[in-house]
Amino acid sequence: MVRQISVPTRGKGLHEITHEVAALVRDAGVEEGVCTVMVQHTSASLTIQENADPSARRDLEDWMERHVPEGDPHFTHTAEGPDDMPSHIRAALTATTLSIPILGGRLALGTWQGIYLWEHRRRGSQRRCVIHVGG
Amino acid sequence: MVRQISVPTRGKGLHEITHEVAALVRDAGVEEGVCTVMVQHTSASLTIQENADPSARRDLEDWMERHVPEGDPHFTHTAEGPDDMPSHIRAALTATTLSIPILGGRLALGTWQGIYLWEHRRRGSQRRCVIHVGG
Amino acid sequence: MVRQISVPTRGKGLHEITHEVAALVRDAGVEEGVCTVMVQHTSASLTIQENADPSARRDLEDWMERHVPEGDPHFTHTAEGPDDMPSHIRAALTATTLSIPILGGRLALGTWQGIYLWEHRRRGSQRRCVIHVGG
Repeated sequence: MVRQISVPTRGKGLHEITHEVAALVRDAGVEEGVCTVMVQHTSASLTIQENADPSARRDLEDWMERHVPEGDPHFTHTAEGPDDMPSHIRAALTATTLSIPILGGRLALGTWQGIYLWEHRRRGSQRRCVIHVGG
Repeated sequence: MVRQISVPTRGKGLHEITHEVAALVRDAGVEEGVCTVMVQHTSASLTIQENADPSARRDLEDWMERHVPEGDPHFTHTAEGPDDMPSHIRAALTATTLSIPILGGRLALGTWQGIYLWEHRRRGSQRRCVIHVGG
Repeated sequence: MVRQISVPTRGKGLHEITHEVAALVRDAGVEEGVCTVMVQHTSASLTIQENADPSARRDLEDWMERHVPEGDPHFTHTAEGPDDMPSHIRAALTATTLSIPILGGRLALGTWQGIYLWEHRRRGSQRRCVIHVGG
């Protein structure tokens, strides 16, 4: 089963999509298998991160802002604004595709793991993910 | 086939799990397929690295220690200690899931490739991985 | 279906392999499924990046050259030259495996996404990728 989901983002940040992905796995009725998630953009990415204390996600974003900063004078790919090039680098450093085993009909995530779409552009937009659930 | 393995770590570092994963692939009896590996934590991660000279892994760890250092004064997520927040960032920069093709009944790894669980916490613990082998 | 492809690289840089991977998916005749790509090396890696403006890829490479530089005096794994250790770190920071959903018999990539093999060694060589296409 392959489905597309659209994730509205309002700006930079980690947007949890665990529930949307888990619902597709439930619908597919697969007991044992793999759920593959891909974001169809190069200025947003995926990561599995702690789903409890939001300060962990804020510190993660802050590290990226400092190490892949907007306005780096070395950047030449700036036509779309100062947040464009950092977004491609941040995507390369994190993940565009994830493969999550399914066990007992559910995503086999650890207790503290959530699936996040990471928006790297300031303005945000409708971000598309393609999700495959296979048995 | 989905299996869970537990990897005991005694502290920071790269722990090779190639043999454990290869054994599961052998047991599954799959000739052609994909082996999916996921670590069920956000303070440990996965990487495929050189399995020959250990100095490559030491330099890799050293780079991380310098670029995602403990005690970074920007971190606010510090309740669990100075090694907590760096561990989440290091996990985001490496991999939480890997998908390795199976060919001729074996993991199709290159000659110098090993699969490693990277423990990012000082004290280590029992780390769980979920492994799916599909045909 | 599992196939190996060989990608000749002449030196550092991002080499697009989208067409080779797409051709294998077409040959496999899979309508819905997943295409798994793995590079069999630890000094080259994979990334999904913007396939339009080449300046985005140049800036990405430049960021890596500056943040994981050759000649870092901390490196001890230097027997194979100054570009050896940076190549392993750059591989760890990007991807060794990718899982791309297949929809309607084609890779479900976004409009601006291309699949790239990233050569991290100066001299380049024949780089092998293993590709699984499953339904």
